[in-house]
Amino acid sequence: MAQRDMDRINVGLIGFGTVGTGVVKILKENAGILKDKLGCEVVLKKIADHDIVRDRGVHVEQDILTTDGREVINDPEISIVIELIGGTGAAKDLIMEAMDRGKHVVTANKALLSIHGREIFEKAARKGVDIYFEASVGGGIPVIKALREGLVANRIESMYGIINGTANYILSKMTNDGGRFEDVLRRAQEKGYAEADPSYDVEGIDTANKLAILINLAYGTYVNPGDIYTEGIASVSQLDIKFAKEFGYRIKLLAIAKAVDSRIEARVHPTMIPASHPLANTDGVYNAIHMRGNAVGSVMLYGLGAGMMPTASAVVADIADICRNIRKGAANRITPLSYTEDAVREVGIKDISSLEMPYYIRFLAMDKPGVLSKISGVLGAHNISISSVIQKDRKIGGAVPLVIVTHNAFERELRSSMEEIEKLDIIQDKVVYIRIEENIGAAN
Amino acid sequence: MAQRDMDRINVGLIGFGTVGTGVVKILKENAGILKDKLGCEVVLKKIADHDIVRDRGVHVEQDILTTDGREVINDPEISIVIELIGGTGAAKDLIMEAMDRGKHVVTANKALLSIHGREIFEKAARKGVDIYFEASVGGGIPVIKALREGLVANRIESMYGIINGTANYILSKMTNDGGRFEDVLRRAQEKGYAEADPSYDVEGIDTANKLAILINLAYGTYVNPGDIYTEGIASVSQLDIKFAKEFGYRIKLLAIAKAVDSRIEARVHPTMIPASHPLANTDGVYNAIHMRGNAVGSVMLYGLGAGMMPTASAVVADIADICRNIRKGAANRITPLSYTEDAVREVGIKDISSLEMPYYIRFLAMDKPGVLSKISGVLGAHNISISSVIQKDRKIGGAVPLVIVTHNAFERELRSSMEEIEKLDIIQDKVVYIRIEENIGAAN
Repeated sequence: MAQRDMDRINVGLIGFGTVGTGVVKILKENAGILKDKLGCEVVLKKIADHDIVRDRGVHVEQDILTTDGREVINDPEISIVIELIGGTGAAKDLIMEAMDRGKHVVTANKALLSIHGREIFEKAARKGVDIYFEASVGGGIPVIKALREGLVANRIESMYGIINGTANYILSKMTNDGGRFEDVLRRAQEKGYAEADPSYDVEGIDTANKLAILINLAYGTYVNPGDIYTEGIASVSQLDIKFAKEFGYRIKLLAIAKAVDSRIEARVHPTMIPASHPLANTDGVYNAIHMRGNAVGSVMLYGLGAGMMPTASAVVADIADICRNIRKGAANRITPLSYTEDAVREVGIKDISSLEMPYYIRFLAMDKPGVLSKISGVLGAHNISISSVIQKDRKIGGAVPLVIVTHNAFERELRSSMEEIEKLDIIQDKVVYIRIEENIGAAN
Repeated sequence: MAQRDMDRINVGLIGFGTVGTGVVKILKENAGILKDKLGCEVVLKKIADHDIVRDRGVHVEQDILTTDGREVINDPEISIVIELIGGTGAAKDLIMEAMDRGKHVVTANKALLSIHGREIFEKAARKGVDIYFEASVGGGIPVIKALREGLVANRIESMYGIINGTANYILSKMTNDGGRFEDVLRRAQEKGYAEADPSYDVEGIDTANKLAILINLAYGTYVNPGDIYTEGIASVSQLDIKFAKEFGYRIKLLAIAKAVDSRIEARVHPTMIPASHPLANTDGVYNAIHMRGNAVGSVMLYGLGAGMMPTASAVVADIADICRNIRKGAANRITPLSYTEDAVREVGIKDISSLEMPYYIRFLAMDKPGVLSKISGVLGAHNISISSVIQKDRKIGGAVPLVIVTHNAFERELRSSMEEIEKLDIIQDKVVYIRIEENIGAAN
């Protein structure tokens, strides 16, 4: 341990961007409350960023600024390194080197942890240092602490998360105010709620990375986020949003994980969920994670999933946890995954084609007799039975939308039936289908 | 420390009732997952209860049962004592004696902690033992951990809680299915959702006790739950529930705390809140706690606030936390309030009469001209301005209900205006008023 003085714990920040600025603000503005709780001062000793000139609206002494991240990790008086530069390149090197030097680490880097978590966590164990990462999922919502500690006594049966604020903002706007995906996205970009390149958010990649972290914590494993079936929201249309409402559903980009026998279901896609469920009413930039444990039943955590101060709140909570460990000489009190290294195991992800669930399917069909009979015939041949049908006089280029909600069906059967149906001459355009989750728990 | 063997940590249970049975079930059924996470076995070494004969549907070895709680606290091999007998008498003695013997304590006893918290927590500090109490508020919801740890970096600006399942069940039923309070209560009693003597729940006493604990954690103080203004739900009528809906509100029994300057607002009463807020949609036996922090913004935690397994989930999470401390020699890593003893201070509770908020007021008035003018005249003389009025042709014994929603008004002015108005000869019956909270945060 670089630092022995228990009345002051020195921290160093690498990455003075939005969240980094929030961390500096909290450490200054809430210094009193932190000292009252931790019994020590948290001293920000160095900040590294490539830009040390820009005014970020918070005062810092000029002499703690540096452009060299290694000045932070090489400072023998710094006990905790806060990595907020993001990405999987330099961030990884800096974190690994910091741990080599006996530093504890706080990071919000979901991309890095979802891809290189095992290597990083194993080094933390070997070096006897802590790595905390509450801000990597759900912004200010203490969901990682809940999984590692608050729900520690539970087998996690399922997790449903709205964990990307940009995608949820766009879908909420489309649902509440109308508009096409492209237009709503553009307005979100103008307001700063979406990046110039929005693909990481709207294609579900960010959600899949975060889901991988939640799965690793819940089941004591390391899944590859690339193995999680991932579908974005670009193809969600107003037509489907309106039909969803008629069926009593809302469409949300959900991260879904379920424990099934000894394997797990893991997927990210636009999902229809009952309109009365609290997740359906999680709108705008809010995030929510609904978890079902075998003892606790349904628990949901809700809050701001991004933004300067909420994310910084989580980062500083991690700093506080590590300070509490330092003061008691209790590093590694909890392993990063909350499972002991011996207990970490491989857990297979079930292939999406083997899953069974209800589906919403929308066809654009010629407006003539016998259409429903032909379609239901193909579905029947694939063991897909129909729960309800809506057909309305809404002509779209000579065709009318026909919407079917199915009972539980296998995805593989659904897909082959769609291929067959798309070949029918009564069908115009591609068939759209959206997966439904009926029994999330709680308000269902 | 009585126990040195780190591969097995012995716990003793006092109180083998509903929650105690849940704890035994979790320790058996989820033993594997606990070992995988804690790196040690949690061994239930003794159970004390006055009834050691009854079949509780879970197998325990006969020789670990005793009718004498002191056998548990005197066992030198037991490290953690779980107190689940409730009440402020024997439970207190057993907890104090257990700590005297160097045992850590887990309890769900909100009545005891809200009244004798200071004495108990100060002894824990003196003896260097831990006392954890997650199950005392919000059942399985990890709200105490959130306040002590997850939101540690925040000044808590406000807390709004639905933290009594019985009262929420009754109000939800009345709202969704109709019925008078007395009838819904009786059916809740038949279903086991309400006690034979329901006063502790429906009069708001339980809610006030829990609110006191939340306030103590949020602000590092010890408030007297008797100083919290407390009003129950027995007087909530169908008429008011329906009018609330017309104004876009729902009625919930809320625990409310706000930091105002250097003092706090603290109160428990039926409250009208916007129907779109997630708290308004927290129905049945579910609990929810909405907190606003100066960094994190709005955070809400939602789950089952009572019941065998949810409450036991929280008790076992506390056991796990203490085991993690024991294995690192890190007792008192976090103080019970999360504030250091030096930082604990007295915080005054503002008198209800000095608070300012909007009100819903219902009069039963004679159906003749000039009524509204007289009533609004009295309100105006007390600086109470009207936001909206509903008067409908719903004759109730020769009179019609007249409903007024006010802008912000002082409670003391409201009360004196009500006294004056009740004396008017146009008014029949007592005037009903219900406090409104418009700006809770998040979905508002």
